[in-house]
Amino acid sequence: MSISGKPFDDFRNLLDVMPEASEQAVAAVRSRDAQLTKPPGSLGRLEEIVEWLAAWQAKTPPTVERPTVVVFAGNHGVVAQGVSPYPREVTKQMVANFGAGGAAVNQICGTFGAGLKVFEMALEIPTKDITQDAAMSEAECAATMAFGMEAIAGADLIAPGEMGIGNTTPAAAVYYALYGGKASDWVGRGTGVDDAGLARKIDAVERAVALHRDHLADPFEILRRLGGRELAAIAGAILAARIERVPVVLDGYVVGAAAAVLHALDRSALDHCIAGHLSAEGAHADVLRRLGKKPLLDLGMRLGEGSGAALSIGIIQAALACWKGMATFDSAGVSDRG
Amino acid sequence: MSISGKPFDDFRNLLDVMPEASEQAVAAVRSRDAQLTKPPGSLGRLEEIVEWLAAWQAKTPPTVERPTVVVFAGNHGVVAQGVSPYPREVTKQMVANFGAGGAAVNQICGTFGAGLKVFEMALEIPTKDITQDAAMSEAECAATMAFGMEAIAGADLIAPGEMGIGNTTPAAAVYYALYGGKASDWVGRGTGVDDAGLARKIDAVERAVALHRDHLADPFEILRRLGGRELAAIAGAILAARIERVPVVLDGYVVGAAAAVLHALDRSALDHCIAGHLSAEGAHADVLRRLGKKPLLDLGMRLGEGSGAALSIGIIQAALACWKGMATFDSAGVSDRG
Repeated sequence: MSISGKPFDDFRNLLDVMPEASEQAVAAVRSRDAQLTKPPGSLGRLEEIVEWLAAWQAKTPPTVERPTVVVFAGNHGVVAQGVSPYPREVTKQMVANFGAGGAAVNQICGTFGAGLKVFEMALEIPTKDITQDAAMSEAECAATMAFGMEAIAGADLIAPGEMGIGNTTPAAAVYYALYGGKASDWVGRGTGVDDAGLARKIDAVERAVALHRDHLADPFEILRRLGGRELAAIAGAILAARIERVPVVLDGYVVGAAAAVLHALDRSALDHCIAGHLSAEGAHADVLRRLGKKPLLDLGMRLGEGSGAALSIGIIQAALACWKGMATFDSAGVSDRG
Repeated sequence: MSISGKPFDDFRNLLDVMPEASEQAVAAVRSRDAQLTKPPGSLGRLEEIVEWLAAWQAKTPPTVERPTVVVFAGNHGVVAQGVSPYPREVTKQMVANFGAGGAAVNQICGTFGAGLKVFEMALEIPTKDITQDAAMSEAECAATMAFGMEAIAGADLIAPGEMGIGNTTPAAAVYYALYGGKASDWVGRGTGVDDAGLARKIDAVERAVALHRDHLADPFEILRRLGGRELAAIAGAILAARIERVPVVLDGYVVGAAAAVLHALDRSALDHCIAGHLSAEGAHADVLRRLGKKPLLDLGMRLGEGSGAALSIGIIQAALACWKGMATFDSAGVSDRG
């Protein structure tokens, strides 16, 4: 077991001072909800969504005026192990595609008027191959988390996303290190590896976790040794959002690995997060079960980019619109139940 | 067994001439999809949605420029049996609420820029109590279906909805008549009846189906004897949409009963329909299984008004936006898989 060094101390301290849900704001949401022209409970999870927004923004009405998808892009040394059917250059090319408005997440954000910010992180210098070395030094991992913390500025709802050829392999390694079982339990086909590629992914995850096995009791060490820059940045963004009272929509399999690190550090660290969707990538359903999250959407998506979380922003907007815009029984002159 | 009369002949004839999906349009959608900057299949059901739009509009690109929620409101004699906690006047009051923009469906349509049309159908003269008589005459049922057919004009995507205090009871009676089992298999709490109300609903459904049991071999007879005006209008709207090549988003439990009548008449009658959501109302999951539909959303909603279908319009818009707006590997200079 490693004794993690000072670089992570600031984050540990933040985990100790995370704000709680505002019970007052939730009570105010429920009070108005009970007067709206609908049977109690009939909007299902839309009602829960508004309570969640208010709880973590600690204000009534809550707002979704600046929902923002924040995509972090990173490159991975483990690609050398043949874990992706796409060449590493695609990460950089896709960042250009985001900038030009040509990716899926651009269209989804455009549909709902959500903002999109893309941060590329030293793509020319991939993290080290996790089967050979730690992906990042402690200092680099901490600095990358701090970078992610800055990225949420200005948003009142954030959906972290990621782009990184090969990054389902580090995500699988993080899950395997956190949750155990067999490596194959956590490895899926990612962007679509064939059977031989899948075998290489499983083998890479097994070797990476075996290599670092004496240092995995601390979730921060799992993140820096087995993760990657986008995972570290997302972990920072989720933690900063909690401190700043910005609700978070979790995307799928890769974002879930960053979230799972925080959850392992503190079981309440994701209380301000909602699961935007269930990924089609193998183990995500089990991950969400462990995180105690029920996804808003289940549409067989497995693209990354924050696309599943972005899609759920439309649901969140509609939920808040109902709560804010609906008439009450009194104001509309509608008879309540007898 | 009844021999149904001439009033339904026109609809039977339409069922015989329903257009098929355009394989050419689907092929064109798939051809472009394969070039978009994403791994094949990674947008999951979003890809299927675009194929569905193109198949039934028979054009590439398909459009979602005038998506329209069409709400039909009706009143029901069976309310006299104590099947709803709300008084019948609420149907009319909610129609006024729709007009004033104060209902949930107004907010959801507003979120996604969808149109909303509301048709009230003789609210002062409820249909007859199905435990005592047929809800409608043949002529009235046919005229109401024809009314529903007209309601889709101008839309390129429709989501039929309904408002009608007590209408989960006729819907349950339709399901029980179509699918058998026990009455209690099909009856839920609707807007929220208590245990005694639930028992009255089950009893009313049992008595209604028993009363009409010699006339239920023909689904049109099920619709006119056990249904209601909004169910007849929705059945007409769904059928007209097929003829006019307008894709249909099905809402929940009550809309499903109208759809199920068409499905019983012709197993292909709903091929142009997608299930917008799974209702929390008891039997809807079983209904969707019988109709062969997998819902886009599962958010515990049970409001009616077309609200669940309206919510899924945002998903459909995002799906089409991806297909239309994404760059191709060539145009974006992104390397395809090796």
